Amino acid sequence: MPIRYLGLDGDDTLWHNETRFHLTQTALRDLLRRHVPDADVDTHLSEVEMRNLSLYGYGVKAFTLSMLETAIQVTDGRIPTADLQVILGWGKKMLGEPTELLDGVEAALEEINGRYELLLITKGDLFDQESKLARSGLAAMFSGVEVLSEKNVESYASVLRRRHIEPAEFVMVGNSLRSDIAPVVALGARGVHIPYPLTWHHEHVPDDSMPREGWHRLDSITELGALLDSL
Amino acid sequence: MPIRYLGLDGDDTLWHNETRFHLTQTALRDLLRRHVPDADVDTHLSEVEMRNLSLYGYGVKAFTLSMLETAIQVTDGRIPTADLQVILGWGKKMLGEPTELLDGVEAALEEINGRYELLLITKGDLFDQESKLARSGLAAMFSGVEVLSEKNVESYASVLRRRHIEPAEFVMVGNSLRSDIAPVVALGARGVHIPYPLTWHHEHVPDDSMPREGWHRLDSITELGALLDSL
Repeated sequence: MPIRYLGLDGDDTLWHNETRFHLTQTALRDLLRRHVPDADVDTHLSEVEMRNLSLYGYGVKAFTLSMLETAIQVTDGRIPTADLQVILGWGKKMLGEPTELLDGVEAALEEINGRYELLLITKGDLFDQESKLARSGLAAMFSGVEVLSEKNVESYASVLRRRHIEPAEFVMVGNSLRSDIAPVVALGARGVHIPYPLTWHHEHVPDDSMPREGWHRLDSITELGALLDSL
Repeated sequence: MPIRYLGLDGDDTLWHNETRFHLTQTALRDLLRRHVPDADVDTHLSEVEMRNLSLYGYGVKAFTLSMLETAIQVTDGRIPTADLQVILGWGKKMLGEPTELLDGVEAALEEINGRYELLLITKGDLFDQESKLARSGLAAMFSGVEVLSEKNVESYASVLRRRHIEPAEFVMVGNSLRSDIAPVVALGARGVHIPYPLTWHHEHVPDDSMPREGWHRLDSITELGALLDSL
């Protein structure tokens, strides 16, 4: 069965994302260490985020709320209101920033578009993701957009079923083994893993826990057209 | 063409929503008046929410962030950190509360289910809405769920197109003339307006700006089955 549909992840596959969280987290660390010099801000924030995941889900608004909670807890409530206002401002800045594409994305998609039907399949905050796509300049290339609250076997199966796509004619491209590759391989579709230099620990999966077949790894999206031709 | 598909809004159509925002807003007013007795908290919060709409979208996380911003601004930064922590807690409480169905919803849907294919079509925060549906006990009755970042003619058209539904075979049921009724009537589908006692001002549309044909008004969802039979 020939490949007809190509699913593409957005964050850290088409545009930079984790880098922004990382930069903001560095700023938070600096801010809080002025109040509590030996605080382990990263560990604390990560714990707060994991604890809030079932209530907040993913995205910048969730991250902002977890930063505020961390700031209050780490300083035992001694952080001044002005600093909390600064943190609120970081969240807004992240939400309003232009969408910064990864190198080669536009050319790679233009090469592939027309040969396959392109679907953007992301997770996270619906409003935020739609806004990022709109600002990316790539929207016209996608025939569909799916924002999922979680990327797992069930949610991919539901997308394919709803769109009448057979797993054998579907390839998913993304930077996360856990969210983009493992679930589609489990469904009998294929995956193309393009790692991003930074991976949120929550997304990390060791290679040796992955199935051997059904997925490929590329260094860059610029190689995607050639790989698809060979499948 | 017989009606085959029934779209149902969630918030304030199937389950209580605005009441919770209203209760939390009352608590915010009380909290802030302890610091600034003559503050017009409602107006200020509403302005902050409208200003943030294009960055935050709808939902409890957006509301929580706007409450925090309002609290800091209204008190000129004098609000103590402990009170901001209280506001953060209100947001979590709202997100974790059980989904409280409106009277008669379960029986009304059971009566209709099987005769029509039911779709939940809501707007707001994806994660929050999916979580509310899961907690509602109604999920099994819906053949599909659409969480839209905005409910307008385009987003409804896109849902119908993607699901191969003709407007003539679609009826949308909801409490908001602006979000549930006007856009579907414009598409040539039909609307059933079931008002909720509280309407967020942003959702308000005067009756006389609505088209005369193409929609109906009910006092309660318990009347829905009979109305659909008559269409």
